[in-house]
Amino acid sequence: MEQNEHAARENRRRFDTHNIRCVNLLGGAGCGKTALLEGTLPLLKDSCRAAVLEGDLATTRDAKRIDALGVPVVQLLTEGGCHLNATHVQQALEQVSLDELDLLIIENVGNPICPANFDLGEHLRVAVLSVAEGHDKPSKYPLLFKDAQLVVITKCDLLPHVDFDLDIVQTDVRRVNRSVELIRTDIKTGQGFDRVAEWIRGSAARPATENSAAEASGG
Amino acid sequence: MEQNEHAARENRRRFDTHNIRCVNLLGGAGCGKTALLEGTLPLLKDSCRAAVLEGDLATTRDAKRIDALGVPVVQLLTEGGCHLNATHVQQALEQVSLDELDLLIIENVGNPICPANFDLGEHLRVAVLSVAEGHDKPSKYPLLFKDAQLVVITKCDLLPHVDFDLDIVQTDVRRVNRSVELIRTDIKTGQGFDRVAEWIRGSAARPATENSAAEASGG
Repeated sequence: MEQNEHAARENRRRFDTHNIRCVNLLGGAGCGKTALLEGTLPLLKDSCRAAVLEGDLATTRDAKRIDALGVPVVQLLTEGGCHLNATHVQQALEQVSLDELDLLIIENVGNPICPANFDLGEHLRVAVLSVAEGHDKPSKYPLLFKDAQLVVITKCDLLPHVDFDLDIVQTDVRRVNRSVELIRTDIKTGQGFDRVAEWIRGSAARPATENSAAEASGG
Repeated sequence: MEQNEHAARENRRRFDTHNIRCVNLLGGAGCGKTALLEGTLPLLKDSCRAAVLEGDLATTRDAKRIDALGVPVVQLLTEGGCHLNATHVQQALEQVSLDELDLLIIENVGNPICPANFDLGEHLRVAVLSVAEGHDKPSKYPLLFKDAQLVVITKCDLLPHVDFDLDIVQTDVRRVNRSVELIRTDIKTGQGFDRVAEWIRGSAARPATENSAAEASGG
């Protein structure tokens, strides 16, 4: 853990030196993290130069989906590991032209638990929850939401078909993270992606000290 | 890991002494493991005496749902831990009347990665995947499916609304686990729960050596 903290600080220092904002995208397997990037990155294209690090246990499927958008991407394979650590990111940065970037998004391994324990050097954390996972998840997996600056509720097109109460989610998320913002998205209609893109643009413009995930969590 | 193997062997020895079959239920957060138990346990009531160990990070919500069925249940809280280990189970067994049981189902923490690495002393592993998680999951999370004797595909009522190809799932699951059985379930119509109950009854009746998860995985 100490080694991770050290590497995370190094990563953040490099991001700050290059004036890059780094976002750590967290959520369970199949909650729609890659689809969220597919919906949001095209809306950011004109205002910032973005790249993505894709964390997975196996396959390069997700990196291919990002590559298809014309966005630079590095696939990180954990070989069975349940989370990314700051050293994974440090190594991947060797393959990224930091001078040509404004925004780096790290899509973490699909797992609502372990990734939340590891600071990667990010400035912002975005937690993702799909309506198909159920509204009990913020109370059952509080760590995922505790240090996030934004919670994105995905797959809202499924709301008529699942038992999911947004009010319960909002109450339970705010119980562990009072000021966090929530945005609903829907891949079918594209609802909400503009708000996520706007949030990222706005957060990226603020000084690092105002919204650093590490400082918010005391790490 | 060595300590876990030792405790797992001890657990399995106790189950065998009491003629109890033990099932380890694995899958991501919100994939429908508790709902699967709610659908299946009532169908097993007349043919076997079952109890459940509920693994969670926080809250006793799932244990309450099992208790409402009139099935004995022990809640195991990992306090942020991402998986159950064999010692968790060993401790929980102190609260279970083993002489009055035929079947013990352990619902693991919702996480498609870490729990698969820990033998709990079970005889059988059941992996759960919801159609809302996407058909790419068996190729991205092969460990979840590799040592399972049964894969249950849940939330099939959502099939008309999501992009999920059962043939791809079947092919990718069989790539890492040739002989595993797949059963589809649907909480809305109740489809498939009778097949799962029948599978558990049938597997529980077979001698332990024929379908021990530990032996299948070489553990």
